[in-house]
Amino acid sequence: MTSGGVLTVVSPQRVGSPTWLYQLSKAGKLCVPAMNVNDSVTKQKFDNLYCCRESILDGLKRTTDVMFGGKQVVVCGYGEVGKGCSAALKALGAIVYVTEIDPICGLQACMDGFKVVKLNEVIRHVDVVITCTGNKNVVNRDQLDRMKNGSMVCNMGHSNTEIDVASLRTPELTWERVRPQVDHVIWPDGKRVILLAEGRLLNLSCSTVPTFVLSITATTQALALIELYNAPEGRYKQDVYLLPKKMDEYVASLHLATFDAHLTELTDEQAKYLGLNKNGPFKPNYYRYTSR
Amino acid sequence: MTSGGVLTVVSPQRVGSPTWLYQLSKAGKLCVPAMNVNDSVTKQKFDNLYCCRESILDGLKRTTDVMFGGKQVVVCGYGEVGKGCSAALKALGAIVYVTEIDPICGLQACMDGFKVVKLNEVIRHVDVVITCTGNKNVVNRDQLDRMKNGSMVCNMGHSNTEIDVASLRTPELTWERVRPQVDHVIWPDGKRVILLAEGRLLNLSCSTVPTFVLSITATTQALALIELYNAPEGRYKQDVYLLPKKMDEYVASLHLATFDAHLTELTDEQAKYLGLNKNGPFKPNYYRYTSR
Amino acid sequence: MTSGGVLTVVSPQRVGSPTWLYQLSKAGKLCVPAMNVNDSVTKQKFDNLYCCRESILDGLKRTTDVMFGGKQVVVCGYGEVGKGCSAALKALGAIVYVTEIDPICGLQACMDGFKVVKLNEVIRHVDVVITCTGNKNVVNRDQLDRMKNGSMVCNMGHSNTEIDVASLRTPELTWERVRPQVDHVIWPDGKRVILLAEGRLLNLSCSTVPTFVLSITATTQALALIELYNAPEGRYKQDVYLLPKKMDEYVASLHLATFDAHLTELTDEQAKYLGLNKNGPFKPNYYRYTSR
Amino acid sequence: MTSGGVLTVVSPQRVGSPTWLYQLSKAGKLCVPAMNVNDSVTKQKFDNLYCCRESILDGLKRTTDVMFGGKQVVVCGYGEVGKGCSAALKALGAIVYVTEIDPICGLQACMDGFKVVKLNEVIRHVDVVITCTGNKNVVNRDQLDRMKNGSMVCNMGHSNTEIDVASLRTPELTWERVRPQVDHVIWPDGKRVILLAEGRLLNLSCSTVPTFVLSITATTQALALIELYNAPEGRYKQDVYLLPKKMDEYVASLHLATFDAHLTELTDEQAKYLGLNKNGPFKPNYYRYTSR
Repeated sequence: MTSGGVLTVVSPQRVGSPTWLYQLSKAGKLCVPAMNVNDSVTKQKFDNLYCCRESILDGLKRTTDVMFGGKQVVVCGYGEVGKGCSAALKALGAIVYVTEIDPICGLQACMDGFKVVKLNEVIRHVDVVITCTGNKNVVNRDQLDRMKNGSMVCNMGHSNTEIDVASLRTPELTWERVRPQVDHVIWPDGKRVILLAEGRLLNLSCSTVPTFVLSITATTQALALIELYNAPEGRYKQDVYLLPKKMDEYVASLHLATFDAHLTELTDEQAKYLGLNKNGPFKPNYYRYTSR
Repeated sequence: MTSGGVLTVVSPQRVGSPTWLYQLSKAGKLCVPAMNVNDSVTKQKFDNLYCCRESILDGLKRTTDVMFGGKQVVVCGYGEVGKGCSAALKALGAIVYVTEIDPICGLQACMDGFKVVKLNEVIRHVDVVITCTGNKNVVNRDQLDRMKNGSMVCNMGHSNTEIDVASLRTPELTWERVRPQVDHVIWPDGKRVILLAEGRLLNLSCSTVPTFVLSITATTQALALIELYNAPEGRYKQDVYLLPKKMDEYVASLHLATFDAHLTELTDEQAKYLGLNKNGPFKPNYYRYTSR
Repeated sequence: MTSGGVLTVVSPQRVGSPTWLYQLSKAGKLCVPAMNVNDSVTKQKFDNLYCCRESILDGLKRTTDVMFGGKQVVVCGYGEVGKGCSAALKALGAIVYVTEIDPICGLQACMDGFKVVKLNEVIRHVDVVITCTGNKNVVNRDQLDRMKNGSMVCNMGHSNTEIDVASLRTPELTWERVRPQVDHVIWPDGKRVILLAEGRLLNLSCSTVPTFVLSITATTQALALIELYNAPEGRYKQDVYLLPKKMDEYVASLHLATFDAHLTELTDEQAKYLGLNKNGPFKPNYYRYTSR
Repeated sequence: MTSGGVLTVVSPQRVGSPTWLYQLSKAGKLCVPAMNVNDSVTKQKFDNLYCCRESILDGLKRTTDVMFGGKQVVVCGYGEVGKGCSAALKALGAIVYVTEIDPICGLQACMDGFKVVKLNEVIRHVDVVITCTGNKNVVNRDQLDRMKNGSMVCNMGHSNTEIDVASLRTPELTWERVRPQVDHVIWPDGKRVILLAEGRLLNLSCSTVPTFVLSITATTQALALIELYNAPEGRYKQDVYLLPKKMDEYVASLHLATFDAHLTELTDEQAKYLGLNKNGPFKPNYYRYTSR
């Protein structure tokens, strides 16, 4: 992805941030300017929150035809992906529990109406376990052993490490492939746990990504490349940068027409009152863009 | 608020950020280190998003006994406050329109299911206008003239400038105080528009702030003062700082017990995988904490 | 309420149906035709479902300033009132449990995303208990003894019998009136339970009824009286009747203009296909008008 | 479906009621007792409300991969099916309009936060049209002509008559099958309207029915047959009956275990107070079982 001394990076999986790129930079091994487009606001919201809000439903339906109403679900991790998944499932009548390591995200889950629990507190009685953590071994063999017959487990977070799938490849357990991407793992007592996509990303394996989301991502990348290419000598050093906010806003504005959305323009008086340029950027860099 | 060379600032109104403090710093007139506690994550979410989600309902009910179901409402501004107000009203059966100047927030409103319009497109037929912008003259006399009989207008944003109330103090309009904080402004043709709190903040004037929110705010301020006081020489210069993320997380963790929320602890292996300290902070500084 | 041989009955409390009127009829003691307007569709939905969806929030806020987000609430009874209360609280971030005696309503609660429990399973850890049953002693002294410090209990159902308030008037408990309609009942160990309106109806005691709801109710009653008065000899005998569906529809149609709602008219071809008169009634008598 | 003098009827399409059976009875041509299981409470809610709430999402995703967030959708008909479809789409961020012929259902749509419009008012700008009416020619050629490029139309109601598909089979329009169940109908100016399942039922053609729903339906039918077979001479004449409420409740109670739902039992004192048998039935025949 190097291109004449510039580098844009799209995190291939949703890990919250392209950690390795920052590590490269920290180690002094980054030889070109890089732009972390993964953490631009617009791309983040669409790739993670808005897209996963729909693809969790899509992925579960296409693989298992499960009814959501009344199901007990535990969502591990309440970042953007976890927020999207839990909101969608709750909206369709599921009872959702959340696990978190971060007290701020944990408090957000409380305020959004989710009981924050340790996985062990609910693992015996939930119908569905969904990992959205960016972490590894979030669901381990011990917990899989305690899941109930007919329950299912899947990964919406990143990579294939969140569920300890390797621990299920032992002689006493039988695997039965019931359809593509759907395995029944069978315990000696006959208990079946339904594993989706062998623990790889459910939304990439078993659902589709709407073209609208792809358009957001592609636009963000293209603008980042244009910026790196056109930037005057010295604006960017061998470091990792976030997309300039104005470009982030530009990506969003290009996609508003789809929704027939009409923005309001600041008057001169208002722009002066707010200390803003009428064309943006409209927010300080540390602004967080809560979704709701 | 200066205290032996330290300064913490709580924005007296919700304006998104304590703009004037940054202006002071920029002008080189800040003579002590200052901490912008207003923009700490936990305080922001509670003061703005979570609190306003409830107080918009409370404020409207206590003043007007209005039924929310079926009402057409326009929320001006889709920041934290606007997000809270529109989510609550939608949840109770109102039809909500949103106005925005920022394309990112506008796109968020679209994805949350709100039609993004210019105020002029809907002003004639809405039942309620709510300002949440941090801006001035968002609703002007021309628009007030076009509001329908019995409609109401109120401010959840900041100060008393968002609605151009001064423009309503002209001879041809009659003001009738129907109860505390509630005025009927009467046009020559008999049309009445209901103005709440004379355009001052509805939630401060006409509803209550739950003690839980006050606890979050007070804890944040106290920790900021302690940090500034205890910090080793040189950690803070004459500049504006955000609350260290670890303290932000600490505020949140102190309030989790109320909800009987149980956080998960990272294993050593997981902490290493994520490159995190097991005790936090858990997120990079640019992380945005979407609410949903 | 007798009027020249006619009788319309509005249930003074929401008990699901004016039971005593049917008992009178069964006993042969009804001396005039009577119309059970309480169970007309339009009135039922507004008095119970739509009104309580808002007044539970209003009543709790005005009396206690409680924050809804993250609160654990148990709603006893999942009829129209219970459905309204639980939907509103869930929408504002509370975690809601439901108790039911009727398997159909219990299954509805499941599909709406509420855990159906026995009161004893959750009484120790909930923050709020709300009765909506039409029954008596739904919360008894034994359960009140087990509620936690600072929790609250109120009645949205009917009468003042749902919470066994009499059982709290014993020497070892101290009552402290902290504001009108709000009592702290104090146990010997210092535990306080907050009792609202002394167990009478929260929405009648501590919140307001929107004029729109009153308009629906008054219109329904007036039309019932007109029908009974104008009906040809013999249409109504000494029995209890439901409001004719066409009148029920007429009440609704009179209130649509408020919402600028535009109904569609059947074409002749469509009316014939459906076997309906173009002016209604549009549904068979047994139709149930699910709200969602 | 006659069986030794008994007849149970499951409406093959969701038309609100098995109209023809009542017509047969009215015409005196029914030669055996018949049970209208279609209108038993439990079956109705699951087949129509709860099932369609999920299958509208599933059907649209599998056929078109559309993103729901921000889409403008019109749902024609606000019965059980329309309520399910509009609630689900709204929950996922779509902006939903509703058309209705019945003022009661229209008022319900208002209170649920949907703008009630005539189809012609919105047909030019909506992205998706969904019919749920039980009626015919609800979307006619004139309206299809005015739909915008890229918009889609589908039927969730009954049969294949709701969209006037026949009117699209004219020489100037080109049909292009882009995948199974998905046709692009192309106007001379290049405009494409996406027609799903050629106007037949989307949920039967393009999504799956969860086994839980099938279990509810099968149980209801089986119990109806058992009742008709076992009933003492004379209980049922050559007429159409609804499933006895107690059996309806029994169907529900058999399915509660799936959700680990725990019903509350009436005490003797409570049963007496309510005038109910402790084992049910718990509601009068005219009770309507609002869902929310």
